[in-house]
Amino acid sequence: MKTLIVYAHPEPKSLNGSLKDLAVSTLESAGHEVRVSDLYAMNWKAVVDAADYGPDASSPLQVARDSGRAFDAGRLTPDVLAEQEKLLWAETVIFQFPLWWYSMPAILKGWVDRVFTFHFAYGVGEHSDTKYGERFGEGTLAGRKALLSVTAGGPESHYTARGINGPIDDLLFPIHHGILYYPGIEVLPPFVLYGTDRMTDEDYLDVAKVWEQRLLTLESTEPIPFRRQNFGDYEIPSLHLKEGLEPAGRTGFGLHLRG
Amino acid sequence: MKTLIVYAHPEPKSLNGSLKDLAVSTLESAGHEVRVSDLYAMNWKAVVDAADYGPDASSPLQVARDSGRAFDAGRLTPDVLAEQEKLLWAETVIFQFPLWWYSMPAILKGWVDRVFTFHFAYGVGEHSDTKYGERFGEGTLAGRKALLSVTAGGPESHYTARGINGPIDDLLFPIHHGILYYPGIEVLPPFVLYGTDRMTDEDYLDVAKVWEQRLLTLESTEPIPFRRQNFGDYEIPSLHLKEGLEPAGRTGFGLHLRG
Repeated sequence: MKTLIVYAHPEPKSLNGSLKDLAVSTLESAGHEVRVSDLYAMNWKAVVDAADYGPDASSPLQVARDSGRAFDAGRLTPDVLAEQEKLLWAETVIFQFPLWWYSMPAILKGWVDRVFTFHFAYGVGEHSDTKYGERFGEGTLAGRKALLSVTAGGPESHYTARGINGPIDDLLFPIHHGILYYPGIEVLPPFVLYGTDRMTDEDYLDVAKVWEQRLLTLESTEPIPFRRQNFGDYEIPSLHLKEGLEPAGRTGFGLHLRG
Repeated sequence: MKTLIVYAHPEPKSLNGSLKDLAVSTLESAGHEVRVSDLYAMNWKAVVDAADYGPDASSPLQVARDSGRAFDAGRLTPDVLAEQEKLLWAETVIFQFPLWWYSMPAILKGWVDRVFTFHFAYGVGEHSDTKYGERFGEGTLAGRKALLSVTAGGPESHYTARGINGPIDDLLFPIHHGILYYPGIEVLPPFVLYGTDRMTDEDYLDVAKVWEQRLLTLESTEPIPFRRQNFGDYEIPSLHLKEGLEPAGRTGFGLHLRG
């Protein structure tokens, strides 16, 4: 299994750094190929700007169109091209990051903003009155799987169905569905550690065992059953879920899960 | 009304740039004071790292603790201190940005990550077995209001209750509730423009009128009725919403709205 780990934490000796190191050693020991994008170590440029598109940047800048033109011409910057190549190489992508303000750190959001260009991750396939692209179940990255490995400072109860932060599955939906499933990646249930503000060295030993177990069973883990866009579940062109497909009482983001 | 506009788009001649300019001129013409944080023009540093905390950075780096220590000592970097000062000055904060991958551009997430430090935006008030801080309705920024002004490329139908992207209110909940309401800011219903990929100059004239109207009625607009953490709606210490408080059938993020 070819695995790319995208890792976003400024401190190598952090919990996130340890989980990343453990993922590398566990997967390599099991015979898998692993590559790591350590965004802080790479000094990853987090911000989209005209410099990303060189001679393909128009004036005024048009982010979508210009990024697609640079992509088509093979003229994106070397750092972005390298990440796109890694994504195409990978069978599995693990994202290791702390939940900062209920989302990813800026450096990782900037990886998405810059690497997921037009014609690579979006604007793929026919866009017309009868089809709105190949996405949500199809796309450039179809056939791949991804897993978020996330640390949260607060306790688990705050992230449950009635918890004050909202349910973790809903908090992660914009990443799971909106970023990963959009260009075709199947998404595995996340590995979330809670209460990390108070984690002890002893706690870590237990956590490490659970994480190893998740890593060694990735290939047999069922993905989150998101509905595919272009296979009958949605009206065209509104892309509304057809009436009656959901279990009684299901609302919100949960509508977009099968069964 | 003292208004801070935090603006995140790389192109001054973009739709987002025009909406920001219109907000400045409309509010100033109505006699309000306006300050703008133009993150791209400021070359805003998007990435949290040890350099943010100078002599208060420990080794290994601990982002929360070190940022709180630097905050307490008045030794955060001048760029961060200036933004905190603007937030304390402001009565209303408008965020103007394009929805990129269902969230804010990295440069704006980096503004949150770096400006919303420990002891300023979180880790405020008593944290014990009987109280988990002053947040969600209380906090350093209580008494202020915020408004997201957001542009989305796709059509509105994709962002409705049954739309494939999920409802816009749920997509914005991690920002509205998790970032803004957390340190005490009341959040006004967002101003969202859809289908901006296909917007014409004529469309913009209509849009501009609606935006002006929103801006001139900010002071009389009711905020989103999020539930306050410490006033009886939640169990302590689980911070679960107490049973029976929600209207029948209400689930997900919607639980955390009153009535």
